Amino acid sequence: MSSYNNNTALFAAARRVAIFGGTHGNEMSGVTLANLWAKNSAEIQRKGVETRAFIANPKAVEKCIRYVDTDLNRAFSPENLSSLGGDTLPYEVQRAQEINRIFGPKGSPEAYDVIFDLHNTTSNMGSTLILENSKDSFNLQMMNYIKKAIAPASCLVLLNEHPHLKYSTSRSVAKHPVGLEVGPQPQGVLRSNIFQAMRVILKHALDFIELFNEGMEFPPCTVEVFRVLERIDYPRDANGNIIAMVHPNLQDCDWEPLNPGDPMFQTFDGQTIHYQGPGTVYPTFINEAAYYEKQQAFLTTRREALVASSIRKA
Amino acid sequence: MSSYNNNTALFAAARRVAIFGGTHGNEMSGVTLANLWAKNSAEIQRKGVETRAFIANPKAVEKCIRYVDTDLNRAFSPENLSSLGGDTLPYEVQRAQEINRIFGPKGSPEAYDVIFDLHNTTSNMGSTLILENSKDSFNLQMMNYIKKAIAPASCLVLLNEHPHLKYSTSRSVAKHPVGLEVGPQPQGVLRSNIFQAMRVILKHALDFIELFNEGMEFPPCTVEVFRVLERIDYPRDANGNIIAMVHPNLQDCDWEPLNPGDPMFQTFDGQTIHYQGPGTVYPTFINEAAYYEKQQAFLTTRREALVASSIRKA
Repeated sequence: MSSYNNNTALFAAARRVAIFGGTHGNEMSGVTLANLWAKNSAEIQRKGVETRAFIANPKAVEKCIRYVDTDLNRAFSPENLSSLGGDTLPYEVQRAQEINRIFGPKGSPEAYDVIFDLHNTTSNMGSTLILENSKDSFNLQMMNYIKKAIAPASCLVLLNEHPHLKYSTSRSVAKHPVGLEVGPQPQGVLRSNIFQAMRVILKHALDFIELFNEGMEFPPCTVEVFRVLERIDYPRDANGNIIAMVHPNLQDCDWEPLNPGDPMFQTFDGQTIHYQGPGTVYPTFINEAAYYEKQQAFLTTRREALVASSIRKA
Repeated sequence: MSSYNNNTALFAAARRVAIFGGTHGNEMSGVTLANLWAKNSAEIQRKGVETRAFIANPKAVEKCIRYVDTDLNRAFSPENLSSLGGDTLPYEVQRAQEINRIFGPKGSPEAYDVIFDLHNTTSNMGSTLILENSKDSFNLQMMNYIKKAIAPASCLVLLNEHPHLKYSTSRSVAKHPVGLEVGPQPQGVLRSNIFQAMRVILKHALDFIELFNEGMEFPPCTVEVFRVLERIDYPRDANGNIIAMVHPNLQDCDWEPLNPGDPMFQTFDGQTIHYQGPGTVYPTFINEAAYYEKQQAFLTTRREALVASSIRKA
């Protein structure tokens, strides 16, 4: 909810903030932080803000698996949120409805202001904030603040508003949904460096919200984002079996330019498959474990500069 | 089966060799190689040897999980292998009995000569051969041959004949059981470098068997091994919840010396826990995903030199 005044976007104070861990039950940094903060929330409290840490998929967390029946982070579609069936629905659909009741309803004035959803990836993505809407100046300003606050450490922004590849996330229940993806970290493993990177980013995100609520005006800024372009699958044979791996020149090179003609895959019999696209792209989510089932070896992105207007509390 | 002649150990020719992938269904290098070689075994055939590639736990492979009911790589105990119950037994116990029928029986003259069991780990162990018996000169000679063949790349030997920590592996059905553990690789991911390292080691292992069968005598040699000493658990609170992570100074430092007083864990509130043992140890399997449920943050080992007698075909 924003209105404009002399080119300054006015937003309501962000009074209710949630931090989700365990939307995927085997992504251990978010699971561990949400569990810690659910027990003792001192670290995430800020003046004038109620911050709630929450385990989004407790059954998956208990089993240390991504999901029980279906991917919770794809489950927040209008169809799922309105479908009847109660206990007969897939577990994650039931859970999405419950989360929507607690933190939403999605799209309503009653919804939480901000949801941070904490994820880990097996890809070498570093710290990545995920933005779902290029026009959300509140989120863009927050991301700009975080990027500056943690420098010289880096934090990139992935923008997914692709007409087909955008999906219905857990965080989409909030007015300002923020994804945080940190890697590389294997599923089921907690690495201190990844855990610490996530914790520091949350600290600055909450600091931003406090400053905003206290009335600070944030001047216009430009944020570099990587816009989702395309999903690239592994090469497969006629039966659908994977016949190649991410090429060693591409493995771990998330966010580095991939140019037409560059090596992309290596088949099991040693052949190189080259990228054939029309121009330079920036791959990410390279060789993410959870995306084999989604037939995705990596995503391509385009680098863009988004301009955020100045913002201030209404 | 060996006999001694002028200090040369005589072994029967190794005519039947198996390569197991997917003893753990989410360790993708072994799964992929065993599937490839099951379709086309030209690469693993050697003169006078019948080599068979085999998926040990197909149900776990299909689901890309470690196991369905219980860890197959702990299931080859005498109790399991002799237990009645058929279809009512846990899936992996049934499967262990089936594997024992095909490749064993364990401990009998009919058993396969060699089983290579291919594993991946999330630990930064590099290429590691696992030996179950310090007196098996055939295996020690093979490991010596492989180490020399792949140099300057490295391949270490982990010896597990610990009275309590040794377990009943899938490969233990063979006369000469050989584990191969390559990492780091997340569960459910196939990395070309790890896949390639595993493939090259198998090549040299099979070359060794062919040379041995052809009558080559291998002179005495000394093999550096790391003997399993102790299992170290994560620090926990009174309810059994983990309260610390592997310290950044120890993470990824498999095989490097850990001295009394060195940092070992970092608690979630930032305290360092130091190693308090009596002397230098060499940690391995540091922060392996699958070992959280086994209450193991890492294993300590001691470096030893084992002497293998010369060997020749009987």
